[in-house]
Amino acid sequence: MGSLHVEDLDNSSKCVENPLDPEEFRRQGHMMIDFLADYYRDIEKYPVRSQVEPGYLRKELPDSAPYNPEPIETILEDVQKQIIPGITHWQSPNYFAYFPSSGSIAGFLGEMLSTGFNVVGFNWMSSPAATELESIVMDWLGKMLKLPKSFLFSGNGGGVLQGTTCEAILCTLTAARDRTLNKIGRENICKLVVYGSDQTHCALQKAAQIAGIHPKNFRAVPTTKSDGYGLSPNALRSTILADIEAGLVPFFLCATVGTTSSTAVDPLGPLCEVANDYRIWVHVDAAYAGSACICPEFRHFIDGVENADSFSLNAHKWFFTTWCCCLWVKDPSALVKALSTNPEYLRNNATESKQVVDYKDWQIALSRRFRSMKLWLVLRSYGVANLRNFLRSHVKMAKNFEGFVALDKRFEIVVPRTFAMVCFRLLLPGSPLLMNGYQNGYQNGNGVYHKDETRANELNRRLLESINASGSAYMTHSMVGGVYMIRFAVGASLTEERHVISAWKVVQEHADAILATF
Amino acid sequence: MGSLHVEDLDNSSKCVENPLDPEEFRRQGHMMIDFLADYYRDIEKYPVRSQVEPGYLRKELPDSAPYNPEPIETILEDVQKQIIPGITHWQSPNYFAYFPSSGSIAGFLGEMLSTGFNVVGFNWMSSPAATELESIVMDWLGKMLKLPKSFLFSGNGGGVLQGTTCEAILCTLTAARDRTLNKIGRENICKLVVYGSDQTHCALQKAAQIAGIHPKNFRAVPTTKSDGYGLSPNALRSTILADIEAGLVPFFLCATVGTTSSTAVDPLGPLCEVANDYRIWVHVDAAYAGSACICPEFRHFIDGVENADSFSLNAHKWFFTTWCCCLWVKDPSALVKALSTNPEYLRNNATESKQVVDYKDWQIALSRRFRSMKLWLVLRSYGVANLRNFLRSHVKMAKNFEGFVALDKRFEIVVPRTFAMVCFRLLLPGSPLLMNGYQNGYQNGNGVYHKDETRANELNRRLLESINASGSAYMTHSMVGGVYMIRFAVGASLTEERHVISAWKVVQEHADAILATF
Repeated sequence: MGSLHVEDLDNSSKCVENPLDPEEFRRQGHMMIDFLADYYRDIEKYPVRSQVEPGYLRKELPDSAPYNPEPIETILEDVQKQIIPGITHWQSPNYFAYFPSSGSIAGFLGEMLSTGFNVVGFNWMSSPAATELESIVMDWLGKMLKLPKSFLFSGNGGGVLQGTTCEAILCTLTAARDRTLNKIGRENICKLVVYGSDQTHCALQKAAQIAGIHPKNFRAVPTTKSDGYGLSPNALRSTILADIEAGLVPFFLCATVGTTSSTAVDPLGPLCEVANDYRIWVHVDAAYAGSACICPEFRHFIDGVENADSFSLNAHKWFFTTWCCCLWVKDPSALVKALSTNPEYLRNNATESKQVVDYKDWQIALSRRFRSMKLWLVLRSYGVANLRNFLRSHVKMAKNFEGFVALDKRFEIVVPRTFAMVCFRLLLPGSPLLMNGYQNGYQNGNGVYHKDETRANELNRRLLESINASGSAYMTHSMVGGVYMIRFAVGASLTEERHVISAWKVVQEHADAILATF
Repeated sequence: MGSLHVEDLDNSSKCVENPLDPEEFRRQGHMMIDFLADYYRDIEKYPVRSQVEPGYLRKELPDSAPYNPEPIETILEDVQKQIIPGITHWQSPNYFAYFPSSGSIAGFLGEMLSTGFNVVGFNWMSSPAATELESIVMDWLGKMLKLPKSFLFSGNGGGVLQGTTCEAILCTLTAARDRTLNKIGRENICKLVVYGSDQTHCALQKAAQIAGIHPKNFRAVPTTKSDGYGLSPNALRSTILADIEAGLVPFFLCATVGTTSSTAVDPLGPLCEVANDYRIWVHVDAAYAGSACICPEFRHFIDGVENADSFSLNAHKWFFTTWCCCLWVKDPSALVKALSTNPEYLRNNATESKQVVDYKDWQIALSRRFRSMKLWLVLRSYGVANLRNFLRSHVKMAKNFEGFVALDKRFEIVVPRTFAMVCFRLLLPGSPLLMNGYQNGYQNGNGVYHKDETRANELNRRLLESINASGSAYMTHSMVGGVYMIRFAVGASLTEERHVISAWKVVQEHADAILATF
């Protein structure tokens, strides 16, 4: 901080240039477009998973901000030299980890427009187009998914763009919580119970924590291999009944279409029937797999959604739109009751006319980006036809990869593929089809496993680390039923068939090497 | 939805082009840069506040998404024809409403890089540069603000970039809640009390609502004109004592540096003393005015922050960085305890080594943008010197505007200016200096006012609507002590002295017209 002391005395005689000068914006903007276009063109040169060690960047950067301005040319050189080595390239065609973060030209351009206009669309008045376009595209996408009309504005429901599924779940859970507490009294908050399965995304637990639900009232109902790791309606009902018996109050269920570990699908129809019996709010988290439901052949996975209360998917996972969670609710007034605030400084005629939507009351924050711009550009630039084609091509590539695994007897598919993710593992030499010994009721991560199973897990842990350390492809893992498996998720926008073929070769080569020494 | 039925039968024979083709990205990206550069160049042509009526856009757009792709050229024409009329131009130099949403070239370029890399930086492993750069720039900015070392990573505290202040407050409030409940037992959640003033941003109330604090335990301590609408430490102490007397448990105080209504400053030092006596977590919300504290002459407004627990400012308000709330905490482990989740699919060696920060545990959502990129570009592109110059030039322009108001006897300054916002009103003809009759203890928005005061409020409401309907400038209002006032906030990046002079002429002209008929 030494240098600041002297400089604090300055009287700023420097010339102030405008930080948003249009012609300088043009000059630097074009430079950045070329930088990024080159990045995409050359992206296969970089190791997919960053190879840096913790603390690498502090060694390279100064201790404090520069006192004087630096030119964009210098900064871009530093991005290339200092930042890119620390990036794990989610946009690489050889990226198959977690779930995709699917970029697209249209999504990028939409983000540019949104950032460029830079409006803060908390209510209709603050920028009418931001609110109106959002309502319109949410109806468009709702129709593409064949959501029941009760989720659309035309049916007195409606859609809103959130940043993430975590936010969507927190908002709906808060709405459901207050709906229940308004009946049974605020002082009973410690009696409220939340339901999911042991495969539900951790976003549910986190949302329940934040909303003040007692941690002991969070139910992760165990799933089984025989149910395909989907939540069993019977298991749900008996858990609910036990809670009611104990004097507790069930109020929220999160059902998942496409779980993170294995893309399992909870049976929405039967689950909603159980939940409706106890007036439990059902949220459907289709963060990953929801996008696929714009294809008629996948739509059946959300059959039953008509009896749910809310539904969400992440357009940034597998719908070519950066940072954009689409949430539909049947009863927007439940959100508004739980999340609205009306300070004097935001009062305006449009709000008072009750003819407009003020999205600030549908989300956690007051401020909000013009997110609909990018979804609008994605829907128009590609059209329903190409969006379906993109998704189908990913599914097809995953299917091919599944075929490669099946042909190599050293491997097994751990969970059957449903969408564009393959869950597989290398078998212990001499112990074929270990899974046969591990059927129903196996608890994830608990209990003592057969010694061979522990060794099989260790084998696959080493295989995965070896693949990822090579930088040629990036995959991640999960565990279901005590089995450590490698997840191969196709969906990066630049991925083509040849990348999937190469990735499989990489897996085989590393398996050869590992098996030779295991 | 008619058209979809037929098209559902298609077998997608269409050619699939890659949605992230580098050369097509280049072509369309350059086009968009020119579109936005032209927008900034021509921005003064547009009415600042959008002039559309509710529902305007649904009349112009189709009912459902297109089946076939549309070219970017057509889409950009529609942005110009259909979207721009519905935009309130927050980037216009004639924008003086709410608080600024200050854009800059560097902030825009940083957003492009962040969107272009499109990494999901939930933990260190998922993209090390995203985490490390964030920790580094938060230390840089902390030093620029002369925050005590206990808020920096080098002092075992640390900074994190959130989307909005609402999120920052919710995170810290949740951490404080759990810290207290872990001592007194979860079942006592209904006893917890949150404190702010009647000038505190509605974000606090909303965060308390979401976190399950009993609505009757939210204290908006009344402020007075004689305290400059800052929170009185004595009033705080007596409110706390009454609550303790009633068997309740005070746990969280939000103090504000630069309130939304009038940029009032709560006295941090004395407030922290009171709060520390009762082990209350103090969050300092410097969303608007925090940025100014990088200038030595403004730094004293956050004196006392050394005894607070957390501090935040919005870099998107007045620091040239879109969508970026900077939050520092002294005890990151309190955030992590309240907000962490550790599912198997995110397990990795770096996390287990405990050598890295996993920012997912410092925020509401799991997923997170590479936000530090834009803050890094802003700090480097302008340097401390120019950033101070920018802020000082806004303050100077506001000071000039204040001078114009003071010279016209028909107007008064309602609250003395502190930063770059002027709160003024037109006086009722023949009733000079009405404020003199309305000193201490006046409740905002409650009670029956003197008839003249009601008329004065109506006069200013009409004046403001008349100015805004003209499209030549945009301002908004607030009420303090029962007085309706016009807020004139300088801070849009394109604003120059000449725009402030014009805006004052617009105010005078509309005042002439209104007074002639009132």
